[in-house]
Amino acid sequence: MNSKSSQGTFTDRLISVIERKKSHVVVGLDPRLEGIPSHLQRGITQKFGFTAQAMSEVIFEFNQRIIDAVHEHAVAVKPQIAFYEKFGYLGIKAFEQTVSYAKQKGLIVIADVKRNDIGSTVEAYSDGYLGRAEFWNNEQRPVFDVDSMTVNAYLGWDGIQPFIRDVKKYGKGIFVLVKTSNQSSVELQDIETDKGKIYEIAARLVDKWGEGTEGRMGYKSVGAVVGATYPAEATLLRRIMPKSFFLVPGYGAQGATAREVVSCFNPDGYGAIINSARDIIFAYQKTPWRDQFPQEEFAEAAQAATIRMKEEINAALEESGLLAW
Amino acid sequence: MNSKSSQGTFTDRLISVIERKKSHVVVGLDPRLEGIPSHLQRGITQKFGFTAQAMSEVIFEFNQRIIDAVHEHAVAVKPQIAFYEKFGYLGIKAFEQTVSYAKQKGLIVIADVKRNDIGSTVEAYSDGYLGRAEFWNNEQRPVFDVDSMTVNAYLGWDGIQPFIRDVKKYGKGIFVLVKTSNQSSVELQDIETDKGKIYEIAARLVDKWGEGTEGRMGYKSVGAVVGATYPAEATLLRRIMPKSFFLVPGYGAQGATAREVVSCFNPDGYGAIINSARDIIFAYQKTPWRDQFPQEEFAEAAQAATIRMKEEINAALEESGLLAW
Repeated sequence: MNSKSSQGTFTDRLISVIERKKSHVVVGLDPRLEGIPSHLQRGITQKFGFTAQAMSEVIFEFNQRIIDAVHEHAVAVKPQIAFYEKFGYLGIKAFEQTVSYAKQKGLIVIADVKRNDIGSTVEAYSDGYLGRAEFWNNEQRPVFDVDSMTVNAYLGWDGIQPFIRDVKKYGKGIFVLVKTSNQSSVELQDIETDKGKIYEIAARLVDKWGEGTEGRMGYKSVGAVVGATYPAEATLLRRIMPKSFFLVPGYGAQGATAREVVSCFNPDGYGAIINSARDIIFAYQKTPWRDQFPQEEFAEAAQAATIRMKEEINAALEESGLLAW
Repeated sequence: MNSKSSQGTFTDRLISVIERKKSHVVVGLDPRLEGIPSHLQRGITQKFGFTAQAMSEVIFEFNQRIIDAVHEHAVAVKPQIAFYEKFGYLGIKAFEQTVSYAKQKGLIVIADVKRNDIGSTVEAYSDGYLGRAEFWNNEQRPVFDVDSMTVNAYLGWDGIQPFIRDVKKYGKGIFVLVKTSNQSSVELQDIETDKGKIYEIAARLVDKWGEGTEGRMGYKSVGAVVGATYPAEATLLRRIMPKSFFLVPGYGAQGATAREVVSCFNPDGYGAIINSARDIIFAYQKTPWRDQFPQEEFAEAAQAATIRMKEEINAALEESGLLAW
């Protein structure tokens, strides 16, 4: 399942889902408790008490409802593991269940985990997320088995190489942090050197690391995280990494618009997928949806917000002559 | 429990444990399956089958035996979460149990997790590891509740600030990746700029970020990861961050000796703790211990290796006039 030989590279699968759904939208599954409707919490806490087990159940239940509502309009989901991990191992249980459910629904799953370490330790991360973990008697079992994950490259190639081995072996993808969407990303990422800014150097490494992972349209399965809040930088980075997919956070809640994310795309209309979390999954709390959807219809609100985001991006791409279909 | 008001800062607690045990040793709890004695695995798989539950039990059982054997001679344990996470949520369960058991035994616990993200997400990580996670009705509960954790600073201050809030609030510590022990750490960390190499800039940020976290002896609870495999760099970094503790990986298996780690210490004989994982926890497989200890005595071998490492480091410090006692 999901091996390169049977289904092509990660980018091949990603592009075929983009084409089929005519969407570049990634829904960020960041289940903050304050956003989960109280009626949904109530039923579960009545059954399990105010326990960590109940928390795990609440998160998974919420995610299932969101996935059911958005899976025809979103290309991928991106669970941010911090919002699960903060509740300990039962939180991670909800993360595992969410990954599995999203895959069943035909969604690409991007684990937003930003893992990083030295090589022999990164092997363990890669085994768990992308590859196979060795159990007894040399038996190799998939564990999280996501399609793709985010990684941090501060430790250099030997901390990336084990991920790339599994990208090639299992048809998976990684997105390397290059230029993040937050304000103080400038402190290290924007430092000037003889060879350009640090994020440019990181981008050249990503371009190089992706060699040999190309799929049918030439896209590499080693992508980059490029914040939508920095459109000028995105234009430059697009040139440095012409055949890497960009995973673009910062849409909506963090302030970037459809027009601004256009600079992340290639002339062929591919090369970027755009994430939004709060503005979609908690749309029922936000303008304009809160006037149309009561909290019981939070999933319908998420669906409406996903469709609108998909259409906004497609319209901005069309205006720029970049719509792929 | 562990609040700043009752027990002082993280470095205050750390220094008092160092003084009491006359040790600078950190034992890395990286439970690779191939190192766990087969007799210990056998009993558990007979009970639970070859399941993920059995894996979780095996890891925790192994760690308990190691902790029992080393806790009088090691200052801290450093579980590397990748070796738990690779087995999914049941692996994380073993991680949680290990943290709790080590704390009961008077060990400082450093979660080696290298987490990083933008600010609002880092809050979730910090809630789970250092602070309190909000459950229902504004109830704040500790989850992992470790003493300290490793973090990656590629995203800059706003991705660090939430950790520092909890460092101050709960008397916890963080160790920021500055110069890692692996070979290709040079690719980004050693890039030259007008203001020095990237790791020097990171070090100056660490020094600044630690302001306001000082304990009795002036040590800050914002420390740095500085690889023992780069002693010349350590000398320079010691000057840039005079009052930060260094968490020093790379001893033993990665090649660094007691003489080389001396450059990580301050004239007062403090300021560094030295980690070794495989050479201690799997000592029974290695020279010279494998001739003295059968696999049934893997814990005794780990104890002997811990004592020898403690004595090697203390002897090297004494030779340099840096022994604190």
